[in-house]
Amino acid sequence: MARRMKDIQPFHVMAILARARELEASGRSVIHMEIGEPDFVTPAPILKAGQQAMTQGLTHYTPATGLPELREAIAGFYQDKYGQSISSKRIIVTPGASGALLLTLGVLINPGDQVLMADPGYPCNRNFVRFMEGSAVGIPVDGATQYQLNKELIEENWTDSTVAVMLASPSNPTGTLVSGESLKEIAAFVKSKNGYLIVDEIYHGLIYDEEYNTALAVSDDVFVINSFSKYFSMTGWRLGWLVAPDAYINGLDKLAQNLFLAAPTTAQHAALAAFNEDTKAILDKRRDEFKQRRDFLLPALRELGFKISGTPQGAFYLYADCSAFTQDSYQFAIQLLEDEGVAITPGIDFGQNKANTHLRFAYTTSLENLREGVKRIRAYLA
Amino acid sequence: MARRMKDIQPFHVMAILARARELEASGRSVIHMEIGEPDFVTPAPILKAGQQAMTQGLTHYTPATGLPELREAIAGFYQDKYGQSISSKRIIVTPGASGALLLTLGVLINPGDQVLMADPGYPCNRNFVRFMEGSAVGIPVDGATQYQLNKELIEENWTDSTVAVMLASPSNPTGTLVSGESLKEIAAFVKSKNGYLIVDEIYHGLIYDEEYNTALAVSDDVFVINSFSKYFSMTGWRLGWLVAPDAYINGLDKLAQNLFLAAPTTAQHAALAAFNEDTKAILDKRRDEFKQRRDFLLPALRELGFKISGTPQGAFYLYADCSAFTQDSYQFAIQLLEDEGVAITPGIDFGQNKANTHLRFAYTTSLENLREGVKRIRAYLA
Repeated sequence: MARRMKDIQPFHVMAILARARELEASGRSVIHMEIGEPDFVTPAPILKAGQQAMTQGLTHYTPATGLPELREAIAGFYQDKYGQSISSKRIIVTPGASGALLLTLGVLINPGDQVLMADPGYPCNRNFVRFMEGSAVGIPVDGATQYQLNKELIEENWTDSTVAVMLASPSNPTGTLVSGESLKEIAAFVKSKNGYLIVDEIYHGLIYDEEYNTALAVSDDVFVINSFSKYFSMTGWRLGWLVAPDAYINGLDKLAQNLFLAAPTTAQHAALAAFNEDTKAILDKRRDEFKQRRDFLLPALRELGFKISGTPQGAFYLYADCSAFTQDSYQFAIQLLEDEGVAITPGIDFGQNKANTHLRFAYTTSLENLREGVKRIRAYLA
Repeated sequence: MARRMKDIQPFHVMAILARARELEASGRSVIHMEIGEPDFVTPAPILKAGQQAMTQGLTHYTPATGLPELREAIAGFYQDKYGQSISSKRIIVTPGASGALLLTLGVLINPGDQVLMADPGYPCNRNFVRFMEGSAVGIPVDGATQYQLNKELIEENWTDSTVAVMLASPSNPTGTLVSGESLKEIAAFVKSKNGYLIVDEIYHGLIYDEEYNTALAVSDDVFVINSFSKYFSMTGWRLGWLVAPDAYINGLDKLAQNLFLAAPTTAQHAALAAFNEDTKAILDKRRDEFKQRRDFLLPALRELGFKISGTPQGAFYLYADCSAFTQDSYQFAIQLLEDEGVAITPGIDFGQNKANTHLRFAYTTSLENLREGVKRIRAYLA
């Protein structure tokens, strides 16, 4: 196999999930707090639009950059939600945020180029960089910077080989944000180095307490990755988008033609209903439910002895220090699943920085299940 | 931009298509013989299965390798159609054949590795290889070998840097097959060199005169790419599959988890109906219609003075030598579109081998339209 395959790790959570399914198949009850997707089904108005597209026989390819009317709808979303005027020509519809990451890194990264990112962080990011024969540089972060990079960390780690910085706000696995102030400083620094700034905003919409804005408000030079998966509850549809600087659109289009031809057609037609008032009402209710879950789970885990820094502001994850209980979080996760039927994700899926003493808890299951989960964890720790 | 972007060409047919749409928007009639997808809508039983999946709320991720029942159904298809017993574990469902190509080359190709392929050939293949920092070696082919590589050509061009051969049977743009005999020789030679054999069978099902078999009948060591796009008329769904040797499945799974998470869920549920008797009856009728179109267009183009070698056995393309009329097939295609409203694809999209004196005609439009197209081409040539 190609050399890159040795450097690309499988997700350990997949083993946890597979074992959880086995236990369930044998009749055991499992509380799923490992899964990185909303438990909610896609909202009815989106489903209906997808079904109508099928009835109308809309089953052929769309342009590689996506349906023009969907690109317009996404532009409208930036206007309505963030007050940002973004030309639809700068928006490329992709097969999931995965497709947007592949395009972005494909267009920007040469072999040997370094890309800075927070550790812990979304594991695919470093693997995408490796896939392009680049070098992902994980910078250890902790609660002191809300688990995010800042200008100082980036400056310290920037080398002659560094070409780009990847941020995620909110972050997976920590749920924390990059502040607008920090983003401005980072963008200015990266620009001063003629580097690229890539910002993952796929959990936007799932932010619970504060006002927030898109990185596009700070700079037109940024590459913003987004997705219909999380806030819009459309994981299985494989639909995301990318907002890129004008100068890169032709290159991105050319790469999209070659790498995936186009995003799924039915999904694109369905997503036209994602910005309806009806849909928004459903989604905002779901966001409120996620907030309730966070507001239950955060103090409950702390009370059990897990340490969680600050109040994670978004996504549906809590990243918890479990050093009071174990120095081997993977083993802890396996044992907790075997003994009590609670599935969680070990820190090693997110990097190397204190990964063995951290766990990710996803609140992608009902309050009732979360209560039961906490009860079982308490029993396990007793 | 990254260096690879200079080596990856956009599809020239996209400019033709865009201009065709402009002409249509201004009220002109255009006969589309440039488009590489069936004109037919996805069969009703498949649409119905997709709609039912939505009604049932099946909108979450599937496993990265695909729905187990779809992998089983594809295994059943190999049994029924080709008499080949293929374990479903060797089948990975992908977002289009594109996803299968990306996985395969990602797992196999190191930077600098050479991959042999026919010129003319499907343009994405060389671009995928370049994307992996490999080197695509186009070997000129013509009617003498049915526009396919054979053992002699591969042996002649094999170097110390060569690691793989890509075949397509039927081929895009030529519609020609690799014979079973030739495939055996190629497989044995590639094996003797410890190389990889990758066979694109995405136009299987659309073969008109003869019995044929899958490359899996020749060897278990081959990587076979297939798709629901062409025979199954599911282009916009972005669904394909890969059959790989056992030893590579874990690596492919790991890469799929990172690169695209999973193929679209609704598409996978819809595709479960692709192997029904009802669906098969519809698809076989469509195949017969494609055959009628070929049987009309092939002699009609020859009568106009285009040279086409042999009888292309499959897909929905004719690759024609237009040297009697022009030494610049791109200009010819542009002018034919402007003057007479017929859109075709210039040879330069498929490689460098006599590309300027070749054109691809796709019979992805009705017999009536093809008749009108031929009439217009005759007028243009007069």
